[in-house]
Amino acid sequence: MLNVHLLPHTHNDVGWVKTVDQYYYGGKHSVGVAPDTHPGPPTPSEPWTAEWRQCLAWAPVWRRVRLALLVPECPTLVSTVRNELHHGAVQYILDSVISALRAEPSRRFVYVEMAFFSRWWHQQTNATQQTGSERLSPLIPFANGGWVMNDEAATHYGAIVDQMTLGLRFLRDTFGDDGRPRVAWHIDPFGHSREQASLFAQMGFDGIFLGRVDYQDKELRKIKRELELVWRASASLQPPTADLFTGVLPNVYDPPRYLCWDRLCDDKPVVDNPNSPEHSSKELVDYFLNLATTQHRSYRTKHTVMTMGGDFYYENADMWFKNLDKLIRLVNAQQQAKGSRVHVLYSTPACYLWELNKANLTWTTSSHTPMAPTSSGPATSPAGRPSSAMSASTRSLNLCTAPQVCKQLEALAGPAANVGPYGSGDSAPLDKAMAVLQNHQAVSGTSSQQVVDDYARQLAAGWRPCKVLLSNALARLSGSQEAFSICPELNISVCPLSQTSARFQVAIYNPLARKVDRMVRLPVSAGAFLVKDPSGHAVPSDVLLLPQPEGQKPSPELLFSASVPALGFSIYSVAVVSQQKHQGHFPRCIPQKPRPGVIIRNKYIQATFNPKTGFLMQIEDLEKQLVLPVSQSFFWYDASTPHIQDHQLSEAYILSTDGMQLPVNSSAQIHLLKTPLVQEVHQNFSAWCSQVVRLYRGQCHLELEWTVGPIPEDQWRGTTIQSTLEFTSRYPPSPRASPGTEWGVPLTGGISQVLGAGTGSPPHPHTHPAPQDGKKQLTVLTDRSQGGSSLQDGSLELMVHCRLLLDDNRGLGEPLLEEGSGSWVRGRHLVLLDAVGKVAAGHRLLAEKEALSPQVVLAPGGGTPQQPGHARRTQFSGLRRELPPSVHLLTLARWGPDKLLLRLEHQFARGEDSGCNLSSPVTLNLQNLFSTFTITHLQETTLAANQPRASTSRLKWTPDTGPVPTPKVPPLDLATITLQPMEIRTFVASVQWKEDAWTPRDAPLQA
Amino acid sequence: MLNVHLLPHTHNDVGWVKTVDQYYYGGKHSVGVAPDTHPGPPTPSEPWTAEWRQCLAWAPVWRRVRLALLVPECPTLVSTVRNELHHGAVQYILDSVISALRAEPSRRFVYVEMAFFSRWWHQQTNATQQTGSERLSPLIPFANGGWVMNDEAATHYGAIVDQMTLGLRFLRDTFGDDGRPRVAWHIDPFGHSREQASLFAQMGFDGIFLGRVDYQDKELRKIKRELELVWRASASLQPPTADLFTGVLPNVYDPPRYLCWDRLCDDKPVVDNPNSPEHSSKELVDYFLNLATTQHRSYRTKHTVMTMGGDFYYENADMWFKNLDKLIRLVNAQQQAKGSRVHVLYSTPACYLWELNKANLTWTTSSHTPMAPTSSGPATSPAGRPSSAMSASTRSLNLCTAPQVCKQLEALAGPAANVGPYGSGDSAPLDKAMAVLQNHQAVSGTSSQQVVDDYARQLAAGWRPCKVLLSNALARLSGSQEAFSICPELNISVCPLSQTSARFQVAIYNPLARKVDRMVRLPVSAGAFLVKDPSGHAVPSDVLLLPQPEGQKPSPELLFSASVPALGFSIYSVAVVSQQKHQGHFPRCIPQKPRPGVIIRNKYIQATFNPKTGFLMQIEDLEKQLVLPVSQSFFWYDASTPHIQDHQLSEAYILSTDGMQLPVNSSAQIHLLKTPLVQEVHQNFSAWCSQVVRLYRGQCHLELEWTVGPIPEDQWRGTTIQSTLEFTSRYPPSPRASPGTEWGVPLTGGISQVLGAGTGSPPHPHTHPAPQDGKKQLTVLTDRSQGGSSLQDGSLELMVHCRLLLDDNRGLGEPLLEEGSGSWVRGRHLVLLDAVGKVAAGHRLLAEKEALSPQVVLAPGGGTPQQPGHARRTQFSGLRRELPPSVHLLTLARWGPDKLLLRLEHQFARGEDSGCNLSSPVTLNLQNLFSTFTITHLQETTLAANQPRASTSRLKWTPDTGPVPTPKVPPLDLATITLQPMEIRTFVASVQWKEDAWTPRDAPLQA
Repeated sequence: MLNVHLLPHTHNDVGWVKTVDQYYYGGKHSVGVAPDTHPGPPTPSEPWTAEWRQCLAWAPVWRRVRLALLVPECPTLVSTVRNELHHGAVQYILDSVISALRAEPSRRFVYVEMAFFSRWWHQQTNATQQTGSERLSPLIPFANGGWVMNDEAATHYGAIVDQMTLGLRFLRDTFGDDGRPRVAWHIDPFGHSREQASLFAQMGFDGIFLGRVDYQDKELRKIKRELELVWRASASLQPPTADLFTGVLPNVYDPPRYLCWDRLCDDKPVVDNPNSPEHSSKELVDYFLNLATTQHRSYRTKHTVMTMGGDFYYENADMWFKNLDKLIRLVNAQQQAKGSRVHVLYSTPACYLWELNKANLTWTTSSHTPMAPTSSGPATSPAGRPSSAMSASTRSLNLCTAPQVCKQLEALAGPAANVGPYGSGDSAPLDKAMAVLQNHQAVSGTSSQQVVDDYARQLAAGWRPCKVLLSNALARLSGSQEAFSICPELNISVCPLSQTSARFQVAIYNPLARKVDRMVRLPVSAGAFLVKDPSGHAVPSDVLLLPQPEGQKPSPELLFSASVPALGFSIYSVAVVSQQKHQGHFPRCIPQKPRPGVIIRNKYIQATFNPKTGFLMQIEDLEKQLVLPVSQSFFWYDASTPHIQDHQLSEAYILSTDGMQLPVNSSAQIHLLKTPLVQEVHQNFSAWCSQVVRLYRGQCHLELEWTVGPIPEDQWRGTTIQSTLEFTSRYPPSPRASPGTEWGVPLTGGISQVLGAGTGSPPHPHTHPAPQDGKKQLTVLTDRSQGGSSLQDGSLELMVHCRLLLDDNRGLGEPLLEEGSGSWVRGRHLVLLDAVGKVAAGHRLLAEKEALSPQVVLAPGGGTPQQPGHARRTQFSGLRRELPPSVHLLTLARWGPDKLLLRLEHQFARGEDSGCNLSSPVTLNLQNLFSTFTITHLQETTLAANQPRASTSRLKWTPDTGPVPTPKVPPLDLATITLQPMEIRTFVASVQWKEDAWTPRDAPLQA
Repeated sequence: MLNVHLLPHTHNDVGWVKTVDQYYYGGKHSVGVAPDTHPGPPTPSEPWTAEWRQCLAWAPVWRRVRLALLVPECPTLVSTVRNELHHGAVQYILDSVISALRAEPSRRFVYVEMAFFSRWWHQQTNATQQTGSERLSPLIPFANGGWVMNDEAATHYGAIVDQMTLGLRFLRDTFGDDGRPRVAWHIDPFGHSREQASLFAQMGFDGIFLGRVDYQDKELRKIKRELELVWRASASLQPPTADLFTGVLPNVYDPPRYLCWDRLCDDKPVVDNPNSPEHSSKELVDYFLNLATTQHRSYRTKHTVMTMGGDFYYENADMWFKNLDKLIRLVNAQQQAKGSRVHVLYSTPACYLWELNKANLTWTTSSHTPMAPTSSGPATSPAGRPSSAMSASTRSLNLCTAPQVCKQLEALAGPAANVGPYGSGDSAPLDKAMAVLQNHQAVSGTSSQQVVDDYARQLAAGWRPCKVLLSNALARLSGSQEAFSICPELNISVCPLSQTSARFQVAIYNPLARKVDRMVRLPVSAGAFLVKDPSGHAVPSDVLLLPQPEGQKPSPELLFSASVPALGFSIYSVAVVSQQKHQGHFPRCIPQKPRPGVIIRNKYIQATFNPKTGFLMQIEDLEKQLVLPVSQSFFWYDASTPHIQDHQLSEAYILSTDGMQLPVNSSAQIHLLKTPLVQEVHQNFSAWCSQVVRLYRGQCHLELEWTVGPIPEDQWRGTTIQSTLEFTSRYPPSPRASPGTEWGVPLTGGISQVLGAGTGSPPHPHTHPAPQDGKKQLTVLTDRSQGGSSLQDGSLELMVHCRLLLDDNRGLGEPLLEEGSGSWVRGRHLVLLDAVGKVAAGHRLLAEKEALSPQVVLAPGGGTPQQPGHARRTQFSGLRRELPPSVHLLTLARWGPDKLLLRLEHQFARGEDSGCNLSSPVTLNLQNLFSTFTITHLQETTLAANQPRASTSRLKWTPDTGPVPTPKVPPLDLATITLQPMEIRTFVASVQWKEDAWTPRDAPLQA
């Protein structure tokens, strides 16, 4: 007997072609002609635009290259759906589904996205909520349950954990443990990373179902009946901690052909009246029986599953359920009357998984990244190219560090952060906006321009109460009320306060659990400045005059090195010493003719430039005496002009590289700038492509700050600009320069892949380990998610910009013009050189610093003390002692009126750092660790904090590598919290804030 | 204070672009490519096709010319809706609406079409039905309540009454008197006849709401605030019997612009969350207030109405009601908070009408046909052309007399008709199929070809149990069991039994309440025949050899005159006397060179033909010595080629006559045929256009039997073939022959218009009274609904065929190719000449005979007697005495196990027949009237038989012609039933069938 589990579901993108609100309410995507009395389009110059424009320009991860997996079997599906999709209206979907479920108790439905469900829930009446919370959870077995269905490649793992926590918390608060999803449901993300699987396992999920996998991989798995397997997602964590049962769905997440009863489909209804000319049930039942039997051949148990849903389906659930009811009745009647061997039922992912588990089979185990995306079909990627040759680096936006800073300060300052002299502050709106951004159509860069704009609006709206919170908290912790000012455009040297004031304060907040030293760089008016540290001592500073386009005034930048304690802040004061008078002595950029000997260096690193081309030529680690010849330059692809028949256009989902690759320039004009604090080579490749290669004093890495755009009209044909690093020692003849040569960059997603494939380390997705040259290894850290590849040994390409004129016909429906704020991009690549085996200590800690770089807050100074008579505190640490370098404070956030959420992470993998012993287990004492509160009680939970760890019980599977024992939960002692390599431990801490926490005690006072 | 009544509703065409079943289930219109395992398209050669093909060809009323009223304000509406409309799925609409109504008790919804609702109702569970029947009727105030929303022009009034009776009976049986619609709702028919209004008044409706009226008329009424009025729909019936309050809806039946929340619309949802970027409620409320105030200016009371629905809207009712709920709340909050003067509410047509009635105003009264359609806009009809110049003749299919014969025999033979030797017989399926045909998109000819085919299928399916019933009843009433055979293709001289048998029986059933004499014409094999009447006496007969195309054998036809008693049958026997031997003596067609003296004549009429052209030249009434010169020929319009800029193409909804009009030929070849029983002139205009002008012995009218088609490819450009009659005495220079001259034939519908406008007579829509020439009047009776016009005094045009290549873009979406069975058409025009004032007696009685012509049933003879020893009865009458000529037996049908429905109609208008006194009131005695049953009790009801006449109470209105007294219900006495001119009285009779009814007693016996 074959049991067919029907899974009615809807897939609701939290923003894609339409915005989140448009999808929720069913608003229009396109702006039509509106009458005078009718609401028109939103005015283009919303206040948020200016403030966040640069922040977004700074984060061009959106709409950067991703390779989507699309289903070769249904080439027309997406384009068919596309025109109709614009209606998608989640409010009606949920109304309709709930009503249909209540009408007939045997029906089931899978719902996933809490960003939508929670909104709908809060709009229901109390009565509906009360009856609903009792009855809904068994009917809607929520799957996944995150705020969104996150992307797995462009996201930061911390943001994944946060967004899952947000969604699962809503479910727990609303439906109790009954509402807890047992199964993860990542049916649409364009490839699947091992780290995501590891996180889901640590969240307590019993298994995951996937939609999109490589089409060749899937065919092979079908034959081998390995579409269902156990994924061993970590080499560090003790199995089965990171083992996750994984099922690949038979038809992505679509219904079988001819069995789609949605307004978005056009299939025949089930008509069982034999007298009707529309009578269809006999043929449909025959078809279904045949289909089920065929599908069953690719799976191992006597159960098989059919996904009965799709993008924004079930706006009229009655259509679906009415036809499914009939189909079920008719198929099962066939079984009873004519002895067919097929039984069909409404089911849930968890129920299907339960049946798989009961089958008691031994399952294939994979410890690699089996579900990495490569390609949707032969047209978009050459067959046979080894997937190990591909790499992708991606990172969540983790925008401007702000969300973590906001949550930490809310935890450290307690209720005073929420209600204070600046008004009502709240970290939740930004947290939600950030969660929305993790959606697989958001951070991945595959949403439409208006949706990108709306994400910016959401961030801006979330940032407002966050800024209030930040000011309240700083006032509380520093004991002084100031006119705090945050400059979101600091990265492009715009900051009104520092540029117009003769004296000002710079508060620098460090969200890491260790002290950091950081170069602070601020645009200023011309002049000489005196910078004092929190103790009032002068610190060295430079004013740089940077090269500007012809005719523009030089723009001075003040540079000084700041030191900030763990989880705390330092306040530096800046004052003009003498306006204009020292101008002659300021370091200026000196144009350099290419000649031997253009070199920048500090104590650790020396970079040499090619005298002919002006390109980087060699990097040398002076301490370790490592030398690596390397060339770096910019290329562009003609990526959307169809040179070739049946050419697949590049766009949001597809990177097609069968166009030509050409250098932006064969040489760069260079300027040289040297000061005691920094040495810079400014490279000018073209009017719209430049780069600063920089060495700060005391830094162990080389910084490449590139600026690309706007790409001019005449080169608009469809360009993908890449920055490439190639090692001369292995310089191969580049096949890319030959016009018409096909080569693919199937950028695999998967945050764990970058370093994870070999080491199983936690994801630091902005590190690009370049191929190792004997005993040396070059590592490139990016400051955001970027497409990348290493198709030839010794070469690495990173995508920095693209502008494409044509849609790729994969559903988005608009080209990637990147006009306006997206037209130019500035980013940084940090390059480290080290001996093999010693790289981890360097790049992991550097990556941590980059991901959670300090938040700079300015103030004019002279604020009033909060408590008369008390002096202002100019330096503060939330920790009484720093955490060891292997431990990352992943989360410190409010969890309730007197509760905090705390996540501690061992950020090194097993065996990763042999030299400094950073891969060893580490034990912490949480007693008296924090300076502003006392932990009165600690409960350990699963990773998403929605169930106590002690009571967690996952389904047990037998891998083909042999049975694994159930891991024991270590006893919880506040004084001895041990972290194994790669382990993240999550705690809900009951706390008591110390009322005297802000009273200056051991911190230096400023006059 | 202004009250805005929102009327949520859906308009569900009972067949249009899709078939009835496709609309009900939501099936597809277009036939897609189906996989092997999937149901494919229906096989084209369904058994019904052959049988009904000729029947449909005989009834080319379908898809004949109609002029639609479309809304000039919304030119894009129809075409927008069109592409989406194909989904329309009534099963989901009703599920969805009922669910939405139950969720929120303040909501209301109007439902109309019982063909759909009853089907849905029968598919509900008993539990749903039980709770539903208590609760639904207050929520869904059914409007109209007919089986369909019938056409008002192409329908026969008897068929209208039948279909309304069917629908209203379902409502009464299901919901009791609570379910009775108070308001008629004809929002889509393409023009409105006075007779329809009269019928609705007599059915007890309190008022009617209309959607489509002439755009100029509407503008005028807006200014004069006469969109609401009292329609005095009969000049014969005592007011207010036929007075009907009539309201013209403000926006046809569509929602106001920007306020449509259906999947078929694209309007913004109401979003009242001010923080959402989709926030729209403020603008929408402002817009709504402005709209309501503006609209109100065209109406007289402090109430106004908005139709919130459309074609197949509300498939997802939640979308509508959720947004309407919000709109109502917000608008009314505005009223309370800011003192706006607009109050909005969910309402019903009856509730709105009730408020109009309570306003206690004096209303404009119209006794003309104020809602006759003329045009949708200036493009389709020249402005200023007097509407009195237009006429249209239309008639329901009333297909092959069969439905009435079937119902009468079911009533006369009693239960023996239903269960008998031939199986189970039933009149209901054909009754329902006929009701479906009355739909305004069906009989009007505006449905798609596949829908026309499906209507044929429904008729065929209905005809099967009807044939069984007919055989059972004939066996019962004749006392003999025969192999009865009905030849549906008799009209094209195909009948296997008569063509192959040497002897056979001809049973002729007469559904009229008076004896008829009828020429019977049967195709036979060659030979001489002896025909005997029911008494066994030989009657005169001819065998005609009719002209055939070159190379085909002559096709002999047997002709004899039969006499059939009232509501009964006569059985004639036919036997070959001698095969072939008399062939030389048979009358043959003799080709005639045009020469003076081609004349046909009988005792009453003489027709003379033009010696040059072969066209009819003169008609003479020999008895009355009336002579009328007349010319008749065929013309064609180039109707769909755009000669002119912005040309409106002709098609299903539009007749555009700005193309050229050209004669099919300037002369006709003629053949002459004369026998004792008939004289015929066969005119051949072209290979595809011919006509027989015929005079039977003893007939007072001339018969023109025309045959047109298939229209050959090379003249395919888009042709509308007209038969025109022009009186030479007034022959004007025809403006139509000038190319490019614009002239319009805005064919007004309105069954009562043809004769009704002047006389208020009951509708006999197949009579065409031509303009009167002094004291003479020529009348043309058509055998089906046809487009017609009399644009010039003395001329009359009737459309006989059209074939159009392009769609008119009014929603149907396909051209009028009329391939297959519709490619050729044969029809008859009966021409009467009489003195003015004496026409009515002639054409009304002739029309009655044509509408209910006898049903011919053949049998081989030699059947077994039903009761051994009893002889067969060869003649039978259901009436013991004939009814007087002014009384028409409109309905005799089963109404329950021992009940019959009886409708008696006075078929002359007041003062119509001064000569013979046929317009006088007439009194009948129903006691012992029927021969097979006794009436034991009689209850009079309203016209649709859904409420007792005595308890009927309609709203009272004050017309501006002065108050009218409430008419008294006459006491009911079986022996003295008096009918006033034009009156129809409806009775439910309890009856007892006589067991000995079939025993031969006073009928002649045959050996």
